[in-house]
Amino acid sequence: MKEFRILEIKQSVFADNDRQAGELRRELRERGVFLLNLMSSPGAGKTTTLMRTIEALKATLRIGVMEADIDSDVDARTIAGSGARVIQLHTGGMCHLDAAMTRQGLEGLGAGDKESSRKAGPSLPQDIDLAILENVGNLVCPAEFDTGASKNAMILSVPEGDDKPLKYPLMFSVCDVVLINKIDVLPYFDFDLEKCREYIRMRNPGARVIPVCARTGEGMKEWTDWLLEQVKDWREG
Amino acid sequence: MKEFRILEIKQSVFADNDRQAGELRRELRERGVFLLNLMSSPGAGKTTTLMRTIEALKATLRIGVMEADIDSDVDARTIAGSGARVIQLHTGGMCHLDAAMTRQGLEGLGAGDKESSRKAGPSLPQDIDLAILENVGNLVCPAEFDTGASKNAMILSVPEGDDKPLKYPLMFSVCDVVLINKIDVLPYFDFDLEKCREYIRMRNPGARVIPVCARTGEGMKEWTDWLLEQVKDWREG
Repeated sequence: MKEFRILEIKQSVFADNDRQAGELRRELRERGVFLLNLMSSPGAGKTTTLMRTIEALKATLRIGVMEADIDSDVDARTIAGSGARVIQLHTGGMCHLDAAMTRQGLEGLGAGDKESSRKAGPSLPQDIDLAILENVGNLVCPAEFDTGASKNAMILSVPEGDDKPLKYPLMFSVCDVVLINKIDVLPYFDFDLEKCREYIRMRNPGARVIPVCARTGEGMKEWTDWLLEQVKDWREG
Repeated sequence: MKEFRILEIKQSVFADNDRQAGELRRELRERGVFLLNLMSSPGAGKTTTLMRTIEALKATLRIGVMEADIDSDVDARTIAGSGARVIQLHTGGMCHLDAAMTRQGLEGLGAGDKESSRKAGPSLPQDIDLAILENVGNLVCPAEFDTGASKNAMILSVPEGDDKPLKYPLMFSVCDVVLINKIDVLPYFDFDLEKCREYIRMRNPGARVIPVCARTGEGMKEWTDWLLEQVKDWREG
């Protein structure tokens, strides 16, 4: 006898945005722009990770950051202090970014305040090596939309629990790399790092898993080395 | 001079489900069923909070739980051990539940395995005092859809940060009560409880705020007393 019933609720169909994402990726490659799509739950540490990443790579790469948020500009204010170019994207309540929205963000990042580019109409940036999209804090919807990114990264933080790959399967299967953040608080939570690695492997055998602590900097070099290598491969590919 | 630009991305329109939610709420009141919609980020502690809640109230109320999850049945397995009636709702990738989906869940909870009710067609339960919907772990989409609930509750956990009411305004403004969970790890995080209370008040002056630790049980009595009072008011109203 089963302990409970399982009811399958019907899913509505999302508009296909794969074509637009493919087109954006192609144009970005022509311009030598690597686009990283960074996803996580609310409060997993995306902004702190970005601050460390910019600090480590800003001497090597020209970095632009798009901060997607429903309403506030808390994160863009933080990133603005890092020296990277930053734009705040207000999604007006939307729970994810698709390729068309990402393109708007990139064009905004490219335009700056220059009168000339305003006259010529919107275009993708030419003077950025690494564009980073900090997606809306959400483990569900962002995973469903290809943004046109060169690579997808996600952050899972220790306090969220090691079972998240079981509960949010799509997010883990679309990611090229998973940062397991806040490992400094491992002693205070029931989080089994090996079990988590195994769950991630079940969803996505090819995903790189890197334990980090963005606050203290632990593990960040492995992450930024990996990212730098991806950017170089992209520009050479 | 501003530090960065703000770009307003257009929002698509969600289908209105207010009428269905109002109708469901009316039918539930007729049957004496109080429906609690419990929301939070992934890993904020919804299931642990539910286990404590059931433990405290199961002698007084007949409780039924709907566990909404994209794919797994991890949480329903846990809740099944509590003695409460439980049903797993698979959303098939959907990021929230609306009133029609919640009705399906309630009907499933009511039907049990009884052959008779299967013949009579689906109907809302008559023998439950408190139905709890554990919504999908997500601070964005669930806030946009009235499920027909009598009251909305949300859990914000300390590791997520005290700035969440600034970033996810709608979630905090639709909630009747906010549980601030995992207060046992306050010493290890930069989380200002008073600042967080103030941010919540900005969004929603009427929301009750209760600091708790579901793992140790701290603060849970204030929460279950509040909930019991709401259920009684609902049945008398």
